[in-house]
Amino acid sequence: MNGAESVIRTLAGSGVSVCFANPGTSEMHFVAAMDEVSELRGVLCLFEGVAAGAADGYGRLTGRPAAVLLHLGPGLANGLANLHNARRAGTPVLAIIGDHATYHKRLDAPLESDIGALAGTVSSWVRQTARASDAAADVAQAVAAAMAAPGRIATLILPADVSWEEAGGPAAPLPVRPPAAVPEQVIEQVAAIVRSGEPSVVLLGGTGLTEPALLAASRLTSGTAVRLLAETFPARHERGAGRPTVERLAYLAEAALPQLAGTRHLILAGAASPVSFFAYPGKPGSLVPPGCEVQVLAEPGEDIAGALAALADLAVPGARPCPQEAIRPAIPDGDLTGQAAAAVIGALLPENAIVCDEANTAGLWLPQATAGAPRHDWLSLTGGAIGQGLPLAAGAAIACRDRPVLALEADGSAMYTISALWTHAREQLDITTIIFANRAYAILSLELQRTGARTDSQVAQSLLSLARPDLDFTALARGLGVPATRALTAADLAAQLERALAEPGPHLIEAVIPPFS
Amino acid sequence: MNGAESVIRTLAGSGVSVCFANPGTSEMHFVAAMDEVSELRGVLCLFEGVAAGAADGYGRLTGRPAAVLLHLGPGLANGLANLHNARRAGTPVLAIIGDHATYHKRLDAPLESDIGALAGTVSSWVRQTARASDAAADVAQAVAAAMAAPGRIATLILPADVSWEEAGGPAAPLPVRPPAAVPEQVIEQVAAIVRSGEPSVVLLGGTGLTEPALLAASRLTSGTAVRLLAETFPARHERGAGRPTVERLAYLAEAALPQLAGTRHLILAGAASPVSFFAYPGKPGSLVPPGCEVQVLAEPGEDIAGALAALADLAVPGARPCPQEAIRPAIPDGDLTGQAAAAVIGALLPENAIVCDEANTAGLWLPQATAGAPRHDWLSLTGGAIGQGLPLAAGAAIACRDRPVLALEADGSAMYTISALWTHAREQLDITTIIFANRAYAILSLELQRTGARTDSQVAQSLLSLARPDLDFTALARGLGVPATRALTAADLAAQLERALAEPGPHLIEAVIPPFS
Repeated sequence: MNGAESVIRTLAGSGVSVCFANPGTSEMHFVAAMDEVSELRGVLCLFEGVAAGAADGYGRLTGRPAAVLLHLGPGLANGLANLHNARRAGTPVLAIIGDHATYHKRLDAPLESDIGALAGTVSSWVRQTARASDAAADVAQAVAAAMAAPGRIATLILPADVSWEEAGGPAAPLPVRPPAAVPEQVIEQVAAIVRSGEPSVVLLGGTGLTEPALLAASRLTSGTAVRLLAETFPARHERGAGRPTVERLAYLAEAALPQLAGTRHLILAGAASPVSFFAYPGKPGSLVPPGCEVQVLAEPGEDIAGALAALADLAVPGARPCPQEAIRPAIPDGDLTGQAAAAVIGALLPENAIVCDEANTAGLWLPQATAGAPRHDWLSLTGGAIGQGLPLAAGAAIACRDRPVLALEADGSAMYTISALWTHAREQLDITTIIFANRAYAILSLELQRTGARTDSQVAQSLLSLARPDLDFTALARGLGVPATRALTAADLAAQLERALAEPGPHLIEAVIPPFS
Repeated sequence: MNGAESVIRTLAGSGVSVCFANPGTSEMHFVAAMDEVSELRGVLCLFEGVAAGAADGYGRLTGRPAAVLLHLGPGLANGLANLHNARRAGTPVLAIIGDHATYHKRLDAPLESDIGALAGTVSSWVRQTARASDAAADVAQAVAAAMAAPGRIATLILPADVSWEEAGGPAAPLPVRPPAAVPEQVIEQVAAIVRSGEPSVVLLGGTGLTEPALLAASRLTSGTAVRLLAETFPARHERGAGRPTVERLAYLAEAALPQLAGTRHLILAGAASPVSFFAYPGKPGSLVPPGCEVQVLAEPGEDIAGALAALADLAVPGARPCPQEAIRPAIPDGDLTGQAAAAVIGALLPENAIVCDEANTAGLWLPQATAGAPRHDWLSLTGGAIGQGLPLAAGAAIACRDRPVLALEADGSAMYTISALWTHAREQLDITTIIFANRAYAILSLELQRTGARTDSQVAQSLLSLARPDLDFTALARGLGVPATRALTAADLAAQLERALAEPGPHLIEAVIPPFS
């Protein structure tokens, strides 16, 4: 077998079963070798950012890496923004970058560029395979590197001749180290804080937002001065009726500071110490209040649920978890606003749904409106690189064919990776996309104000507006093979969402809303 | 004035008059300061790859850099593929990357990444401005660096606090060094080759494909054994009736090798020594025939037209240039194929047009069909990173408001940066886009064969196909505000193209053709 087949058989043997691909000439032997190994399925994406975002969605749901097959430096560059988001999410992803043949690189052919430098900006592990006989062992290491807790980006650069030359057989999977247990001494230190009665916040992130971790964490609030908060942009937050509800730390520092005010101990459980998303003139960068001590209970790569359970057992023995009651908003009538849309979604969110949330300013009302809906997973934009939602939904739907996926998408962000809809259609994925069409980069109007820049700027008004001409997302969706409707009232949205959810396959609803509504 | 205004005033003073922008929070002070300086106009692009490609088109036509305003590392990453193409084109481009405030970077906020590493892969000049008082001087240097012949990518990383803090005034423009003259000794060496009577090829590239250079080069063929060839993917090739026609070196090595066979001297005038675009098993990487000596007449950054004129004066005194006669193909009847489409375009190409060619396999017949059309500029995909054509057309049209622009675009490539159409619409640019819809990454079916991979691969057939579902480019264009039609016959295309060219503003025609037709 050739090097490509040895790589693919090693992937299949290591449990990698999906390859999101946008291949080019240097990947042709890889693509052809996929015929020999039915355990690895190729999914075509029409842009590398879609492939990378899909791998992120897939990895968040399965805990296993998908492969992403990209073409040389520019192909990787196109995928980097969503690999950045995946890195921030702690998602396992295996990027395979086809390169020129080893002996061709010195010729500086038109597509030659520094792949290693690009890969290094997002990857915990980068290797350029030197010979076909090394390829299988290299990819086994790459998979293990991607699986290292909490999940990393591993990038294997695969020259074309390594793919086409003869190689030995596949390599055996390497053992994956499970998340490390938190030392008992740390648990005891934090237990002392919990028992101290001093105002404390446990900030949950990463696997600290899975159901077992949330159940354990909620016990900590029983008869103590402990409150729970979730990190601002969780990779995967298990929510809904029957699970403890945890409020998220606000994106806006102006709102986050009151959430943390008076806190004496900030206990980190899989979350980073909170900082302002951007800097603003004269405002603090760290959100930790003065006089508050930060204590790490568990790092993102550690056994967070285990640590929370041990902490609860020790600090508040006998305390019981506080699950959320089932409660939904009523379907509203009248104008369609962000608030009304959130109520419609809260009223109709199906059991076991996966929500991919890139609603940005339009999503302000969503957390509250969906807190008591049936159990669901909430996936956020972890790294701030927009254009993530539609690809993320593709990967989530491929990971969980039996679960409904809801993509909640801001109009400006949707345009970055709109061709993801074509993959929704080709794969007949059960994804309902709601585009919040407020015809603006609304967040930036807010940021213009917050940064203290002049808000009467005509240039800013033009550069932050998506009007002239209005984007017609129903036409765009139809052009990409996804049936689409437009909602102008809350009742429209409810009827259209109900219909889309009832029917398998992809749908898109353009929800026309005023900014900041 | 603040740092941002000092930067913008310096840009305006240095002759930079357009800023293609996709800004975020860290660029808000920059955007607001643009109100103060009407000489720099902001053009909104809905994706950074569009902004970067537009700057490439603008720079190729004007010889001056446009600014590209991008948001942090992920924004730059999204622009890198088209910056790669611009680098290969030798286009002057000034990338301005808004960064977090200097003191915020240590907090590792979600959007933090290694901007310098990304910029380094495409830029000849990279600087992170440290203080507001340095910003004006830094940007003056950046402009000069971008203008260094033949044109480079200069990247200025501008932290948010540098933009908002008080600065001095703007900096004066720095002198730009003109292209160096080729030493007389080199001219004499090459003149000896020309006079030797040995079979020689002058391979023209860069500014060697402007009208003055072509007129001079064509004199070299008079009564000598010298032939002319153009590099495979010229940044800007001045063509059409009245100018000497020069055949391009073929993309396929199988076709390029016969073009060069028997050549004893390969004389490079602004072109690189030719290499195969990709490596193929058992095939040579360099296209220089055995026994052929390579001689550099002029490097890309030198005065190529001057060198060619001096060479002709010395080697073939009194020889006259050989301009192309005016001749157009007839408008064909019957089925729409790539060949028929080329004839329609050759028949209707307007005087003084700018053609942005990313037609890929569908473009095989275009050079011949348009050789005798009225004078026009032909811009190609220089770096092989697809998704260039529609952005390039936007930049070209903004550079030359009075010239008609024709974007010839393969369907697969169009999908990478399809939102460029929205900028065509917003700016009401006189661009007619023809999408060659063959429903496949056709080039890759060919490459699959050429790399020797198994061509019966089912996986390859699926991953190289754009069908299931078919993309509807007329719907996509309408969704983005561009009026669109679909051509199914040669007569359809002729009628629709005639109408689109007659009417100002953007239009799109989806030309449905079979692959390799």
